[in-house]
Amino acid sequence: MRPDDAYKWLLSHYKDTAYLFSTAELAAWDQRTYIPKNGHDHRSRQLETLARIIHQRCTHPKINDCLNSVENSNFLTESSDEIQANIRMWRREFDRQVKIPETLASALAGASAAGESAWESAFRQDDWQAFFPHLEKLVALNREKAEAIGYSNEPYDALLDEYEMGLTASTLKSLFVELKSPLVSLIQQISKSSVKPQHRILHGQFAVSEQKKVCARLLEAIGYTLDNGRIDESMHPFSVGIGPGDSRITTRYSEAYPGSGIFGCLHEAGHSLYELGLPREHYGTPAGMFLSLGVHESQSRLWENQVGRSSAFWKFAKPILERSFPQIKDVSLDELVLAVNDVSSGMIRVDADEVTYNLHVMLRFELELALFQGAVSPADLPDAWADKMQSYLGIRPQTFREGVMQDMHWSAGLFGYFPTYSIGNIYAAQLFAAAQQQLSDLSESITQGDFSPLLQWLRTNVHQKGQCLSPSELIQQATGELPTSKYFIDYCTQKYTNLYRL
Amino acid sequence: MRPDDAYKWLLSHYKDTAYLFSTAELAAWDQRTYIPKNGHDHRSRQLETLARIIHQRCTHPKINDCLNSVENSNFLTESSDEIQANIRMWRREFDRQVKIPETLASALAGASAAGESAWESAFRQDDWQAFFPHLEKLVALNREKAEAIGYSNEPYDALLDEYEMGLTASTLKSLFVELKSPLVSLIQQISKSSVKPQHRILHGQFAVSEQKKVCARLLEAIGYTLDNGRIDESMHPFSVGIGPGDSRITTRYSEAYPGSGIFGCLHEAGHSLYELGLPREHYGTPAGMFLSLGVHESQSRLWENQVGRSSAFWKFAKPILERSFPQIKDVSLDELVLAVNDVSSGMIRVDADEVTYNLHVMLRFELELALFQGAVSPADLPDAWADKMQSYLGIRPQTFREGVMQDMHWSAGLFGYFPTYSIGNIYAAQLFAAAQQQLSDLSESITQGDFSPLLQWLRTNVHQKGQCLSPSELIQQATGELPTSKYFIDYCTQKYTNLYRL
Repeated sequence: MRPDDAYKWLLSHYKDTAYLFSTAELAAWDQRTYIPKNGHDHRSRQLETLARIIHQRCTHPKINDCLNSVENSNFLTESSDEIQANIRMWRREFDRQVKIPETLASALAGASAAGESAWESAFRQDDWQAFFPHLEKLVALNREKAEAIGYSNEPYDALLDEYEMGLTASTLKSLFVELKSPLVSLIQQISKSSVKPQHRILHGQFAVSEQKKVCARLLEAIGYTLDNGRIDESMHPFSVGIGPGDSRITTRYSEAYPGSGIFGCLHEAGHSLYELGLPREHYGTPAGMFLSLGVHESQSRLWENQVGRSSAFWKFAKPILERSFPQIKDVSLDELVLAVNDVSSGMIRVDADEVTYNLHVMLRFELELALFQGAVSPADLPDAWADKMQSYLGIRPQTFREGVMQDMHWSAGLFGYFPTYSIGNIYAAQLFAAAQQQLSDLSESITQGDFSPLLQWLRTNVHQKGQCLSPSELIQQATGELPTSKYFIDYCTQKYTNLYRL
Repeated sequence: MRPDDAYKWLLSHYKDTAYLFSTAELAAWDQRTYIPKNGHDHRSRQLETLARIIHQRCTHPKINDCLNSVENSNFLTESSDEIQANIRMWRREFDRQVKIPETLASALAGASAAGESAWESAFRQDDWQAFFPHLEKLVALNREKAEAIGYSNEPYDALLDEYEMGLTASTLKSLFVELKSPLVSLIQQISKSSVKPQHRILHGQFAVSEQKKVCARLLEAIGYTLDNGRIDESMHPFSVGIGPGDSRITTRYSEAYPGSGIFGCLHEAGHSLYELGLPREHYGTPAGMFLSLGVHESQSRLWENQVGRSSAFWKFAKPILERSFPQIKDVSLDELVLAVNDVSSGMIRVDADEVTYNLHVMLRFELELALFQGAVSPADLPDAWADKMQSYLGIRPQTFREGVMQDMHWSAGLFGYFPTYSIGNIYAAQLFAAAQQQLSDLSESITQGDFSPLLQWLRTNVHQKGQCLSPSELIQQATGELPTSKYFIDYCTQKYTNLYRL
């Protein structure tokens, strides 16, 4: 086969697969939002079948023939960056997928869909026993998957690599060593500070109908409009890119605490803005796809934290909050900013402040690593979780749903996924520092409610790149430096030293 | 290949295809309910791709080999009715599909999805010019399809056969001759009757939030609950069977006229009850699928009309309506029943009474037939529509959306579909007459709000049969007679003679 014909075949094959995958994403969105109770069984089988068909397509023997024909050809060396990226990433994906037997791919998809449904009802009833068999099965299937894919050191590395290529347990161990001591030190200093956020500012009675208006207005301001997405509610907030022009988010509103809805929305909209900013002309190919979960998370965390918990943002956003909740008028800007940066040890990761957040991720990383090393069994997880929580944050969950069952990730078989949240925090801080340097008046434009310079900078330096660079290359090109935890630690230290007058 | 192995392959192949199709149904549901504005382009391409992949699967050459191996084998003659039906219907479907080129199948799906989206916005603005190019393209593609499939007499027959096997233009002409004269005579007599429904009973201000409660209660009573479906809103009401345990409906509420929501809901729930009553153990095969559009429509019309517009039903339902709309307490049962059976010439088919309804269908049938004979061109449709409306119902649409653009069917490329609505009316009357005969106290149980004997009768005699019988066989087994328009004409004549004291 001629390399250009081979490339054409690959393009058409993968584009079709992308549309199939996009339908599976829609089915998963529906499963978490609007599906009727008795539709779950069918949905599990449907997603299982789709995963099997997609897996068949991703391991089609002709892919290998076509890749062989293109690789090392003049056609490739003379091609655009996008074509080169597509070939490189298709090869990576094919070599990975082909190692996973079809029965395993399908079993994983079925168990994930069933696990998620089971988690939803088990969560409501705080019923660990109902959820446990699903978790046990998902761990076993993921162990099988790790063995099938292969690894040098840790089985867990095989899972990590799916979400963040090249990420290993060993890298993560070093990273968490770098983060732990400055963060723990900050937490201790903050706890001793005489500056105390006023809990009552953001806790009380906040009508959900008004919260929805606030969230929609804030998201519209940052560039996420309902022409390109939706804001629904679900047990666990998420964002999903259905395709160009359609990336949806969900959030979870709490009448007692509007921060849950607001920061959930900013976070998920950050994900969706990334999806919506991908080059749509490359839809269905790696050049038009998000790069890694770490990079994805950098976008959500940047909008949630570097933007959404900044003083500049609340200068703009305070009047919007006041329109719905007039009592906020009695609060000064500084008091409000302190309240949205209340550092305290809480049980729930998604509600955690920036300083304690990575300790939540570290806990999950250590448990997952131990699970796949066999040092901890699924049955041990509730206690192991509680012990680590006690040790890192000095608190102990009293229920399963404020402990081991709080996130949906494990229920969907996502092991090796949590660590990308910390990677995202690190990228976010580094990217935002670069944007601040390159856009001289960034804070001022945020204060004015003009988020377009920042969004444009992210589109140019992150979104539009698709998978044309590796995560490290992308960070280096955008910021001038390889990824480093320095910016995150500096950001936290400086911000919280100022806020809490440490 | 051994026949039993061949059958196994077919089973697995078609089940997977059914799950794919079910995902396309979900995507179409979403397209009509919750999709954001900018998601339509992607959705069209997605549905186009899915249709192409499904078409590839339905024309897979191995199907023919496998069918050949099973057909005329001992395996088949010794098999269950379900297996025999599956082989018979797969053969019909394969022979039909294989005639449609893949490019045409995909073009039709893409044009349908694009046409539907275009119709939605064109409808809102009453913009025929915006919709026209889509319609023209869809007619051309359907003409190509009819030619590809082939026909004996009329190109239109090739399209009809897809929705109601064996149905021809010639049969329909005779049918409408049978219906036209008694219906026109009834309309004339009713117009001269001194009995006049009181328009004000069901026209005025009816809060939509209360209408929703009424509809949900009525549907729950007849056996359609939100555990197995959803009630959403859309421009054009529809029902869609996503799969076992999940069949959803939409409706359109009018604040000025609650009948739109109530009868829309009863109608669509009738469709969904059929889908939910199919034998789920045969999901993904003809034995587990609805039989034809005519039979489907018989279920919706039966619940909407034979049940929902009966005096027995309103004995039960009136107090439910009164809870939300206390003014109904001032109306007698007879007055209310007359109001829900107000026979008058209206522009809108879905809001039409039982007597004029089939004239609306006749109009569409005649226009479609003329379109595919080439006697009428797409550009002629608005005027041709208006002329026929004038001639059959004595009224003339003043806008496109009360005329040629009122239904979404043509926008989705559904030509040959409308006539199944009249077939459905005929089956509904015949089935209901049989149920009345076989269930001695049917009216009494409806009055008590106990719809389970009727639903059970329909499940046994219609739903559970899947495609194991032909429509004629099904009607004959259930009612003891071949399909005939007699029951429908008798039902209308008797009911309206009584109501209007003719």
